[in-house]
Amino acid sequence: MIDRLSSLARDRGGALCVGIDPVLDQLPSHLGGGVEAARRYCFELIEATAPFACAFKANAAFFEAMGSAGWQLLEEVIEVAGRYALVIVDGKRGDVGHTADAYARAVFEQMGADACTVNGYLGFDAVAPFLGRPGKLAFVLCRTTNPGAGDLQDLTVNGTETPLYLEVARLAMAWASQCGADSVGLVAGATWPEELSRIRHVAPGLPLLIPGVGTQGGDLERAVTAALGENGDAPYLLSVSRAIGGASRGADFQEAAGGAAERYLGRLRGLHQPASTLPSESARSSV
Amino acid sequence: MIDRLSSLARDRGGALCVGIDPVLDQLPSHLGGGVEAARRYCFELIEATAPFACAFKANAAFFEAMGSAGWQLLEEVIEVAGRYALVIVDGKRGDVGHTADAYARAVFEQMGADACTVNGYLGFDAVAPFLGRPGKLAFVLCRTTNPGAGDLQDLTVNGTETPLYLEVARLAMAWASQCGADSVGLVAGATWPEELSRIRHVAPGLPLLIPGVGTQGGDLERAVTAALGENGDAPYLLSVSRAIGGASRGADFQEAAGGAAERYLGRLRGLHQPASTLPSESARSSV
Repeated sequence: MIDRLSSLARDRGGALCVGIDPVLDQLPSHLGGGVEAARRYCFELIEATAPFACAFKANAAFFEAMGSAGWQLLEEVIEVAGRYALVIVDGKRGDVGHTADAYARAVFEQMGADACTVNGYLGFDAVAPFLGRPGKLAFVLCRTTNPGAGDLQDLTVNGTETPLYLEVARLAMAWASQCGADSVGLVAGATWPEELSRIRHVAPGLPLLIPGVGTQGGDLERAVTAALGENGDAPYLLSVSRAIGGASRGADFQEAAGGAAERYLGRLRGLHQPASTLPSESARSSV
Repeated sequence: MIDRLSSLARDRGGALCVGIDPVLDQLPSHLGGGVEAARRYCFELIEATAPFACAFKANAAFFEAMGSAGWQLLEEVIEVAGRYALVIVDGKRGDVGHTADAYARAVFEQMGADACTVNGYLGFDAVAPFLGRPGKLAFVLCRTTNPGAGDLQDLTVNGTETPLYLEVARLAMAWASQCGADSVGLVAGATWPEELSRIRHVAPGLPLLIPGVGTQGGDLERAVTAALGENGDAPYLLSVSRAIGGASRGADFQEAAGGAAERYLGRLRGLHQPASTLPSESARSSV
């Protein structure tokens, strides 16, 4: 997964992840209503943004909100998006061992996604079933984008000044060395650039999935510069959802989404040092 | 939800929750294979155990592992189980505000469940969309049953001796007073009876969902006695999954499951002080 990400990012010139959030009451009006409109929305969004995307991130919640037809659509979206780029299912699952194993099988085997997001509150054995799967990656929630992120994540732990989110980053490093370095990443919101820098310092090599720019107001340049790390070549994915998929609700939706994705990718390209950021193997063929 | 739980528990003589975990490769062999076998398993399990159950807990993971057909089955199971008792969807969801709102709508409106489990790692605004909904309840993960629960949950916080799971219990109390006392509960595993006692002390009035007896080895009597609190009347639900639903994989599966449920309920009845534990209103009719 990390090799494929690197080769795609090299090809595109930056590591943009396009979020697929089919919110029924916010779809372009010309698409009509219901699950069929959501289907057209997802497929047209993928088509319009694929040239600029290293990954697509499907938010499970908005599919679940449509019931079993939505779940079926999620399966279709993963299949179609996977023709162009990596596919992340953003479900933030986390449960005790045998249940986590069922979630991991659902997302990686049943749905065939390349990556997913997981919640580490339950500890190592809740995350382990997602790890060590060849070609698959789990992004562990570290510092989330939301206003209340600090309620738990900022609590300092064990009598030190270390906040919980950094302890999670440290644990993720340990899990990576135990289960396969290529199978663990972290979610670090762009809305907290200082925290993101600290995460990158604790976890210099782990891929960071970075939501929170666009609608949520995070500073793209600051976040990605921090994510690239000291050598400017650490792996990341900048995830943009509403600012691309909701760029227009009019008939020009595809054009607007494609244009927004292209502009985000352009901003990322400006942050990469030429020829330094990504592995040199041409690996398009492996994607 | 809490009134309905109390009246059902009064009627049954104890608060047993039967877990519905249709694990495809562990179904009774006479049921056949695939989703159709899972459907028969779920419905026969509900039928056999309904006389002894205050609630059914459907574990979303095992339905997701069957794809969209599994999701459709989950919807059917909720509808059927809801004819007999309260229905909890155990999905441990947790996400930023607008996404959490979609999860809450999925579980409470689309699926029509009475309660669900949520993960509080993202803080208040990730839990809030599940709260304050009349007749609905969210159990926030506090102390989970699994061996690695302590990886995060035992970290002491903010320079005190308070472990994270107790801070979560304290936060849940605050959320309950902010959003509606009847809409917040906690998950506290029977595998950690001492921790469960401490949780009950911090959150004397919140309903506790208690998994971990049976296959996971928790001590039922010790856990439920702690959950009942000082006055012996605090709300709880003892959740048993594999030890009931997997009591037999033979043709006697229904009889074995019903028998196991009856025995668990019998053990609960022995722990309740007569006429002290539950509200006296006859509320069967409201269920």
